[in-house]
Amino acid sequence: MSDANRNNSSVALGIDIGGTKILMAAIDNTGRKLHSEKVKTSCDPAVIADLVDNFIKSSGLEYGQIAGMGIGIPGTVDSRTGIVIDAPALKWSNTDIRKHLCAKYSFPVYVKNDVNLSALGERSFGNCKGSDDVFYIAIGTGTGGAIIANGRLVEGHAFSAGEIAYTLSRRDMEAGLKNDAQEFGIFERKVSGTALAASAEKLGLTPAGLFCEFQKGNQAASRIIDDFMAELSVAIANVVSLLNPEVVVIGGGVSRSMDCVLDRLNCMVSELTPFEVRIVFSGLGEEAGALGAAAYVLLTGIKLADQEG
Amino acid sequence: MSDANRNNSSVALGIDIGGTKILMAAIDNTGRKLHSEKVKTSCDPAVIADLVDNFIKSSGLEYGQIAGMGIGIPGTVDSRTGIVIDAPALKWSNTDIRKHLCAKYSFPVYVKNDVNLSALGERSFGNCKGSDDVFYIAIGTGTGGAIIANGRLVEGHAFSAGEIAYTLSRRDMEAGLKNDAQEFGIFERKVSGTALAASAEKLGLTPAGLFCEFQKGNQAASRIIDDFMAELSVAIANVVSLLNPEVVVIGGGVSRSMDCVLDRLNCMVSELTPFEVRIVFSGLGEEAGALGAAAYVLLTGIKLADQEG
Repeated sequence: MSDANRNNSSVALGIDIGGTKILMAAIDNTGRKLHSEKVKTSCDPAVIADLVDNFIKSSGLEYGQIAGMGIGIPGTVDSRTGIVIDAPALKWSNTDIRKHLCAKYSFPVYVKNDVNLSALGERSFGNCKGSDDVFYIAIGTGTGGAIIANGRLVEGHAFSAGEIAYTLSRRDMEAGLKNDAQEFGIFERKVSGTALAASAEKLGLTPAGLFCEFQKGNQAASRIIDDFMAELSVAIANVVSLLNPEVVVIGGGVSRSMDCVLDRLNCMVSELTPFEVRIVFSGLGEEAGALGAAAYVLLTGIKLADQEG
Repeated sequence: MSDANRNNSSVALGIDIGGTKILMAAIDNTGRKLHSEKVKTSCDPAVIADLVDNFIKSSGLEYGQIAGMGIGIPGTVDSRTGIVIDAPALKWSNTDIRKHLCAKYSFPVYVKNDVNLSALGERSFGNCKGSDDVFYIAIGTGTGGAIIANGRLVEGHAFSAGEIAYTLSRRDMEAGLKNDAQEFGIFERKVSGTALAASAEKLGLTPAGLFCEFQKGNQAASRIIDDFMAELSVAIANVVSLLNPEVVVIGGGVSRSMDCVLDRLNCMVSELTPFEVRIVFSGLGEEAGALGAAAYVLLTGIKLADQEG
């Protein structure tokens, strides 16, 4: 299909490949969701290609309707070439997932870091819609971050920008803590679903249960949540002082239990940085990555259309 | 003069208005310095306009040769309007310095934060030439920062991005330290020329003398420098984890005494973040701001030329 015809294709596909599941979404060029699916993940690129193809077939879409496909990966991606440099959750290293999909389709396929795509999703359809200066923090099994500045993703020199997980304090340094790209970062060991689950387990609770008990005034739960909030508010305040975003969006699984602490978090952060900011939760939930991957296709299309115009 | 003729004008002026001095430079469109001057500062926009006019006259330039003028201000600037929102060192608040200069000249006048312009200067002519992902830290009387990402300045939602001065640790929070936009930031109270001078004074030394004594093995000086290095390396490592810059450039007056600790700083930072980075000193010294202000004019010109092409 020629590029001219492709411009008439109006559906974008977004595929979010996680460590446990793959979320897939098809949206039209207004952002309306046409079809979505959630399936068990695979680390085998050929199997993933089949899952994607099954998704397209079950969506009832014709290939000709599809403008392109965005793919989110939990790892470091050279987003110019689409090569996955490193994705520990999938056991991928220098993996060319794009090759497996491009072979099947004539539409363009883009591969990017999943947290970066979630941030784009929030900016396109979620709770920071239209903002040019955003920090997105995903508190899930691990904790990741993404930066939008001047309306564009900041990917960094080696495609690793946003990694709040590796931030540390002088106290951490003096305690001899180390950051290793293959391991959880120093901050992530304190603030993540995994860290909360470990603390909650000692009280016989899940992370969600921990927030419930905190609301009921349980002292042991409160101590854990107070600690979590102190670490998180300092980290967010430092990002706000450094990047001066308009909005900080909190996503990831843990954010869905955090309603009861959002006001307090906004208040704590405002005490720690002189700059105003709005802290909100993800508006897209677990589909942020897939919708962001599809949004990237639309944004790329818009850019091309502008340039051609 | 029409815009078409203006494109033939090949000289850019850069004016860096500081709290104690004004540095002025004229460069040609290859970046070659044609003329520069340093004069005592003034807080009176009318006096500054006269100083700038004297500079142009003494440079021997014709007005028609001048493509534009960039002005760096030590404070927060709405860089779309050129209004100086706040510049404590000049006692300016909502000051329209641009109006005073535009009245005299037909060429465009741009007003921006001085540290941001210094970063642009380094990227155009200095030690991170051509890099698209840079963090610049100026350690002078105070400590400021600037971010270049995707080849562009990151100014932030309220033109306040880069403010590493306000970063803090949980220990700082627990000690009840506060950040106030009108005062030195929490980090700046530990890492700045002012902080070093206060520590050095107790030993009867200047900051430069402190680094000399450190090199000679003076234990009291070493304790102060060790503390300074610990704070600085943690702060830079966190910026590197968050922004993944290719280069961190250290400028400002204190950097000129820091030759003896650069290797150690590179080593300490590499222990604290998993991402590679190159830490270098400013290549432009105290003229970074003025040269960066002039560079901004050239960059703006290039952008316009591209768009017109």
